[in-house]
Amino acid sequence: MAEEMKTNADNEVKSDVEETIEPVFEEEVQTDNGQSDIVAEYEAKLEEANTRILRLQADYDNFRRRTKLEIEANQKYRAQTIITDLLPVLDNFDRALQTQVDQEQAKSLLQGMEMVYRLLIEAIKKEGVEMIDAVGKEFDPHLHQAVMVVEVEDTDSGIVIEEFQKGYKLKDRVIRPSMVKVSQ
Amino acid sequence: MAEEMKTNADNEVKSDVEETIEPVFEEEVQTDNGQSDIVAEYEAKLEEANTRILRLQADYDNFRRRTKLEIEANQKYRAQTIITDLLPVLDNFDRALQTQVDQEQAKSLLQGMEMVYRLLIEAIKKEGVEMIDAVGKEFDPHLHQAVMVVEVEDTDSGIVIEEFQKGYKLKDRVIRPSMVKVSQ
Repeated sequence: MAEEMKTNADNEVKSDVEETIEPVFEEEVQTDNGQSDIVAEYEAKLEEANTRILRLQADYDNFRRRTKLEIEANQKYRAQTIITDLLPVLDNFDRALQTQVDQEQAKSLLQGMEMVYRLLIEAIKKEGVEMIDAVGKEFDPHLHQAVMVVEVEDTDSGIVIEEFQKGYKLKDRVIRPSMVKVSQ
Repeated sequence: MAEEMKTNADNEVKSDVEETIEPVFEEEVQTDNGQSDIVAEYEAKLEEANTRILRLQADYDNFRRRTKLEIEANQKYRAQTIITDLLPVLDNFDRALQTQVDQEQAKSLLQGMEMVYRLLIEAIKKEGVEMIDAVGKEFDPHLHQAVMVVEVEDTDSGIVIEEFQKGYKLKDRVIRPSMVKVSQ
């Protein structure tokens, strides 16, 4: 009986424990009543101890699994806060680079700034950041936020025709959808 | 005897377990030799089970402690990679902002870029990044890298007198020391 209960417990907790403390006797020893009582009491104690070992091991295994997943997720999205804080930098940088200039100093300054912008994009790409494709793509509510819907001749409906603000993804997470104009 | 061994094991592994499975009898039952053997065998089995419970609990506790520290350290320095990758952005940005201009377009462009730079510094400061103070400070080999040593009149020796490249710290970690000129 003790053997049977142990097996049940084992299945239930799906533990990695291979061996448990074996009962001293497979079957109850029947010499006299006093001895039988003692044996029963010992078997119960052993049973209790084995159950505790199995529970503890199962808890430990579960904790290890959960922790591993938690550490992996933390690692995967570790840049999320700083990337979110960098969005205004990217937006303003982007806008400034579109300034129309014709004077020499401004032109050369813009060139230098384009280089700095490329380095910035490179740094965030290395952490898993991607710009979301928008213009010309089919509208996708997971990636795009439609702030305008307009009728356009010779264009199917549901196509992104203009991007007002760039969207960004960190690996498989959308950090911010693109803000777009969509054809009706 | 079993009681005593249990106590030793308890001290050794410094476990949080408060209670263990108690032996059935405090002292060995002495009715006949056969029964005494059985009792001894059971006591040994229980002892074995208790030791395993204590060990398992101690392992589990240690694992939990280590994991907690690991998760905290990961969290604390999570931005280190991206900050390191952002250093060339900061250096080049810094340099570009020092361009001397007198034409209107360039002046207004520089103003816009200074705003972008401030946003960038703000974003990295929020993650715990600090610029290392250098000029006027006592030279500190943990924070500063001396690339030039010069004699300066009316200046004590070992003072940073010029900074060639900014240094950065992430919380208590130096990501890159300042590159400086020091007085002799």
